[in-house]
Amino acid sequence: MELRAYYASLALEELISFLLEGGDVALLDATNSNVDRRNYIASRCSSLGFHVLYLESICDDPELIHKNCLSKLQNPDYKDRSPDEALADFYQRLENYKLNYEPLDKERDRESSYIRLFNVGEYIVANHCNGVLESDVVSYLLNTHLVPRKIWLCIHGETDFTRRGILGGDPPLNQNGAEFARKLHDFIRSRGKDNVTILCDRSLRVAQTVRPLAGDYNRCTLLRELNGGDYARMTYQEIKERYPEEYMKRKRNKLEYRYPDGESYLDVKDRLSPVIMKIVSCRDNVLIVGHVAVIRILLAYFMDKPIASIPDMEVKMHTVYELDPTAYCHEAVPYEL
Amino acid sequence: MELRAYYASLALEELISFLLEGGDVALLDATNSNVDRRNYIASRCSSLGFHVLYLESICDDPELIHKNCLSKLQNPDYKDRSPDEALADFYQRLENYKLNYEPLDKERDRESSYIRLFNVGEYIVANHCNGVLESDVVSYLLNTHLVPRKIWLCIHGETDFTRRGILGGDPPLNQNGAEFARKLHDFIRSRGKDNVTILCDRSLRVAQTVRPLAGDYNRCTLLRELNGGDYARMTYQEIKERYPEEYMKRKRNKLEYRYPDGESYLDVKDRLSPVIMKIVSCRDNVLIVGHVAVIRILLAYFMDKPIASIPDMEVKMHTVYELDPTAYCHEAVPYEL
Repeated sequence: MELRAYYASLALEELISFLLEGGDVALLDATNSNVDRRNYIASRCSSLGFHVLYLESICDDPELIHKNCLSKLQNPDYKDRSPDEALADFYQRLENYKLNYEPLDKERDRESSYIRLFNVGEYIVANHCNGVLESDVVSYLLNTHLVPRKIWLCIHGETDFTRRGILGGDPPLNQNGAEFARKLHDFIRSRGKDNVTILCDRSLRVAQTVRPLAGDYNRCTLLRELNGGDYARMTYQEIKERYPEEYMKRKRNKLEYRYPDGESYLDVKDRLSPVIMKIVSCRDNVLIVGHVAVIRILLAYFMDKPIASIPDMEVKMHTVYELDPTAYCHEAVPYEL
Repeated sequence: MELRAYYASLALEELISFLLEGGDVALLDATNSNVDRRNYIASRCSSLGFHVLYLESICDDPELIHKNCLSKLQNPDYKDRSPDEALADFYQRLENYKLNYEPLDKERDRESSYIRLFNVGEYIVANHCNGVLESDVVSYLLNTHLVPRKIWLCIHGETDFTRRGILGGDPPLNQNGAEFARKLHDFIRSRGKDNVTILCDRSLRVAQTVRPLAGDYNRCTLLRELNGGDYARMTYQEIKERYPEEYMKRKRNKLEYRYPDGESYLDVKDRLSPVIMKIVSCRDNVLIVGHVAVIRILLAYFMDKPIASIPDMEVKMHTVYELDPTAYCHEAVPYEL
């Protein structure tokens, strides 16, 4: 037990260093399941002026517990053990945790910020969770779920603009693009049964890409392409020739570069938050047909990649990226159509 | 009591008509404080396929109760009565309510969707509130508060573009605009003490307008002006001459009109949701310096105007609109500087 406490304090100190170096939010994912441990965290953090929000996830539904244990078999801790052995070990772990478990308490913890989540958000209690960040955490927990489903991401089909490297505009699909739309229909129908929620923006090329799929589209301008501002309808070559300084500024920092009177990747990331919540929340399969920058950001989010990697995420034309969102899987499987 | 039940059922039927005619969300703000009444609502709604979410607001903090009673003096019910009389009447009302009050119950209502809010969101319980709409309601309730503060809204100072009616671009303030920036500083300092949170976008004209105020700005591209797309840097006169059909389309329906490869008022409204939550949540005074379409939308929201009225909201240059958000006040007081 002493060794455990030692490692727990190491983790806490690492977290504190991160915050002291300018980090905004840090998660301490550890077994903080007794009062002493939580008091230690609280006193260490409050002395430094950091606000602590406890998150307690309670599960008393035997079926959910069993499913959760099964999903833990993919946990790296168990990679060298047989499924039966791993399962037995995990149930034993649960029994051990129970011995020392002291839940958050309405009276004792009345001054603390905490969220108690029962059976994956079916019932939730939040104390002193006022403010945008805290309420966003509550909101995320209410939307997240364990229902198995697929998420498919792709760019619209080819247009004469994409072929010639022209930014922006509202061009129609060309022949290649129209063929992709048909193949996309066949692909989704072959994999997706009928329960597919389709999210797309209002551009013509995206509308034409999803049209063969029929059904209800969720059209949302938040999914529109990164706005090229004054450089809309130009090619990178033209920008390089006419605005070499801007071209170099973009080359040096694609993530933060904002087109004159347009957007940056970070701007698009900000406006996509409500869309991400919608995708997280959806219990159907979801297909998102978008544009390069938008799909890069969504892929980076669901594949758990760092923000800095967004502009370099590989997103190919006429390729569907399939995600199978679970706790231990952040792979995107590409299907070239 | 029978008359009360009659009026309550009238209100419910009116709400049901609204939903049957295509309404998405309706609020039944009534004394649904006993089990029978709630069961009646639930059975009536579920037979029509409408989902019911109960919202129970519980207050047991005597100080909050007193403040709330005081604020009720502004309620139209009490406009002809003396403050003492009104207050006594309201406390008596509370006693009467208590006689029939049957709270939501964890066991009895375990299959229902409900939110129980204690002392203005200090503590909150949510049952079956999964999904985007339900979690947005929870989020709103966690962010809303009764702390008195002011909200100031204004457009950036004048630029040569605004003077000549040119859309978009990133022009600097002209001399009039710079003078407004100085006056805005004096105005805010004279009214706002020091606790002012400033929200603005990243355009030059807005940055120059808030610069004299110094302090911390919250820069957020979600507050950028309605995107004129292909018509950026044109005047309405030019649009009329070069694209008469588009000009007429916009004239006929300003609310839904979307500039080619640009945005509509409704698009901007959608992207402003997280900003509105930030403003609602803020317990400081807030100053938002924005652009015409953005300020129209924010004013319409805080003045509780219908969406259709957004494009016609009066928003003058060099004028600060002051809001004093309370339950019974949706006035914006204009200060011409």
